Amino acid sequence: MSAVMEAPAVAVDERKPEETEKLVIILSSGDLDKVWAALIIANAGAAMGKETSIFFTFWGFSALVKNEVRITGENWMQKMMAFMNRPGDEHMKLSKMNFAGMGPMMLGQIAREHHAALPHELMESAKELGVRLLPCQMSMDLFGIKAEDLIEGVDAPVGATTMLALAQGATTFFI
Amino acid sequence: MSAVMEAPAVAVDERKPEETEKLVIILSSGDLDKVWAALIIANAGAAMGKETSIFFTFWGFSALVKNEVRITGENWMQKMMAFMNRPGDEHMKLSKMNFAGMGPMMLGQIAREHHAALPHELMESAKELGVRLLPCQMSMDLFGIKAEDLIEGVDAPVGATTMLALAQGATTFFI
Amino acid sequence: MSAVMEAPAVAVDERKPEETEKLVIILSSGDLDKVWAALIIANAGAAMGKETSIFFTFWGFSALVKNEVRITGENWMQKMMAFMNRPGDEHMKLSKMNFAGMGPMMLGQIAREHHAALPHELMESAKELGVRLLPCQMSMDLFGIKAEDLIEGVDAPVGATTMLALAQGATTFFI
Repeated sequence: MSAVMEAPAVAVDERKPEETEKLVIILSSGDLDKVWAALIIANAGAAMGKETSIFFTFWGFSALVKNEVRITGENWMQKMMAFMNRPGDEHMKLSKMNFAGMGPMMLGQIAREHHAALPHELMESAKELGVRLLPCQMSMDLFGIKAEDLIEGVDAPVGATTMLALAQGATTFFI
Repeated sequence: MSAVMEAPAVAVDERKPEETEKLVIILSSGDLDKVWAALIIANAGAAMGKETSIFFTFWGFSALVKNEVRITGENWMQKMMAFMNRPGDEHMKLSKMNFAGMGPMMLGQIAREHHAALPHELMESAKELGVRLLPCQMSMDLFGIKAEDLIEGVDAPVGATTMLALAQGATTFFI
Repeated sequence: MSAVMEAPAVAVDERKPEETEKLVIILSSGDLDKVWAALIIANAGAAMGKETSIFFTFWGFSALVKNEVRITGENWMQKMMAFMNRPGDEHMKLSKMNFAGMGPMMLGQIAREHHAALPHELMESAKELGVRLLPCQMSMDLFGIKAEDLIEGVDAPVGATTMLALAQGATTFFI
């Protein structure tokens, strides 16, 4: 329960809620469409000047893992779970109509034709706009993920208490 | 990124948060049970006097498409995605226990016996109660959906920025 | 529509939002990982002193049903739905990588090794921390669930209006 009980590790803004608009997204899904939605909303919020954070947990954590990392984990169970669900944003599946990868390919193609940003582009612009990418400490522990497995620009891992402290007075979404 | 960066198109209430209670639901799922939940919550909120909006995006967008529209889209990829996932509230599947349509049939039958409102009834009462039905502009673009494909009583399409402006100070759910 | 239109049954806190921090989680999923996430967040919120409630609805309702209850419901359709989706927290499946129960077994094993609390432990600590477990009245009606099917320590059933009254000014998540 250490992840639940820790003191908030992130400096929480002391100003009144009216003065700082905040946006906190919990991303627990690793489906391409859900990750995409989370990143679009986070980019829009940050562009509007909101103090924006994404807390990556459970399957959503895979969006923070480098594409070239094939297997994460320290023991055979963690390695097997990673093997069955390859992390990284190039390996995500749609929650509906995946068709062995054809759905994501088609949606990516349509997005390019409409000049809509793709997930990896949105992750880059999110970082540039100052969106905080917060890895869930418990997910790192459970899946045996190490700091070197993560993409560049990620914050230090935090627990649910820190996330909830940030979420106080914020617009919140669980995706 | 036009959908992300546009200026808010909806007139945002200027009163303080204490004076207007707001409810904003992002509906990204097209599953019958999720659409049902969104509509029940929206109807309850509007009946309580809350300024209530539903932002229909990704698979949730299909709840705004007329039942008689079989195929949407302008190119073969958009048409194929619509063919595999027929839009309209009469064609929704449950996220669990769909059983080739038997689950929705049984749940509909049980709902009728208990005088619980069905999704299409809740959509009608939502409109009567003044719930704003906001189509996601990017979803319309990506899936090639045209204004004439949509049911009556839908607002003009908006982007994530407008949705987030409405969500400021509101009770928010991502469904 | 009685579940939608009822007057709030729960005494709503009259203090200003600044004085009481609130957390309201709607749990509509019965997947093990989603129930787990809801309970971790609720425990963290309650431990931080937030007035915390979980509203159990649709498939999420099964987390409130005793493990020894095999079949719930009053008519054959309700019984058949319960038969296909056995309620109780010992019978939950993962939303991804269930592998006929091997996924939950492995994740449970990993959690034990890392001293992370399991769902049934988190349900017990939630009750001790004063988290309100609110059954959705409409879900009880639709699935034919009786008061004696429920675990100990559950509040009286409420509708969407009561849930939304609690959610006013709260941090909210739909899981």
